[in-house]
Amino acid sequence: MPTLTTFRAVPSFAVGYVRDLRVRWALEEAGEPYDVRLIGFEEKESPAYRHEQPFAQVPVLQDGDMTLFETGAILLHLGERFPVLLPRDPDGRAQVTMWAFAALNSVEPYIANLANLVVFSMEQPWAAAQRPVLEEIALKRLGQVDDWLAGRDYLAGDFSAADILMTTVVRLLDGMGYVERFARLTAWRDRCTARPAYRKALAAQVAQYAPETEAA
Amino acid sequence: MPTLTTFRAVPSFAVGYVRDLRVRWALEEAGEPYDVRLIGFEEKESPAYRHEQPFAQVPVLQDGDMTLFETGAILLHLGERFPVLLPRDPDGRAQVTMWAFAALNSVEPYIANLANLVVFSMEQPWAAAQRPVLEEIALKRLGQVDDWLAGRDYLAGDFSAADILMTTVVRLLDGMGYVERFARLTAWRDRCTARPAYRKALAAQVAQYAPETEAA
Repeated sequence: MPTLTTFRAVPSFAVGYVRDLRVRWALEEAGEPYDVRLIGFEEKESPAYRHEQPFAQVPVLQDGDMTLFETGAILLHLGERFPVLLPRDPDGRAQVTMWAFAALNSVEPYIANLANLVVFSMEQPWAAAQRPVLEEIALKRLGQVDDWLAGRDYLAGDFSAADILMTTVVRLLDGMGYVERFARLTAWRDRCTARPAYRKALAAQVAQYAPETEAA
Repeated sequence: MPTLTTFRAVPSFAVGYVRDLRVRWALEEAGEPYDVRLIGFEEKESPAYRHEQPFAQVPVLQDGDMTLFETGAILLHLGERFPVLLPRDPDGRAQVTMWAFAALNSVEPYIANLANLVVFSMEQPWAAAQRPVLEEIALKRLGQVDDWLAGRDYLAGDFSAADILMTTVVRLLDGMGYVERFARLTAWRDRCTARPAYRKALAAQVAQYAPETEAA
């Protein structure tokens, strides 16, 4: 059974948004049970953990004799085991791989810059000048994904690992009203987040932190 | 023969840094000749090109009957054909895939934010306040890669596609003095950029733009 490593506790704003959600969701889609290993926030900097995760982040997935980091790589690895995440034909595999990298390199950096500004830095003196700059490129990227979704239910054929990654990227803007400017993107996101596997994964992450949040 | 699509002309600051370098380098490592298709900068927004590259970026690689975008996906695809880019054993493949995603998601966004500030925005009123913030996270990431390289010649076993991606990420800071604060990282970068395939790829990109630069 795979073992997912994540943080024992996180700040309340992060509950539901910790990146282990991507792996939980993928494992739920695959119907694969998993164990959870919890580490303290300070433990991420330990030499033992940095050997597993050089960037002191979560999640890590141990699967058989492999220890994996980077959610993109973890999902492609799970895709080798479970076709629901990654189709078997070469063209389908390539499409999912392209959209996995697109989510994490062509979209997430711009979405994260905007989300971080809105969530953490609006009190800063430079926030007012930065916001339109970051909005412009983030909205451009959202619009490009929205364009791509014309006539498509999912990013790359059937539902795949690419949809898991891109959904969690788009969710970084939850509650900010940006995504909802794009009808196809919103419908696609809602289609993805309506999946039972997503619901189970999110509930598992929230339940993980509920006791800690109450105790904090 | 694969066909690489890139821009016909770019601003002089971008010469040597266009992302097609990653694909040229990978093809040179593989000893695979390639054709080049040039598009105008305005052509990137055309519906036909957006069908190939939804984010209106370069490069695109046509290889057999596949049309690929996202340099990470292109390099993993080429790795399926050429073991010099991606080893054949499952653990080695996973390591290279992890470091490919690490380069593009855990490192490049922070490096790019800092490089973009230094190159494009130092005249902005918010630049002085932003610079130390962006430097802190970028230097942390560089330090984490430097730590990982202790006792290693390359990121994931032998030289691989992951080193190509990470080298081109680190090069975004050329001439700024940040990378050189880290001895192992600098030695690794110099080891990668000393490879004949890198030299040939860089020369090919520079030669591509030389007439345009002179004509501009």
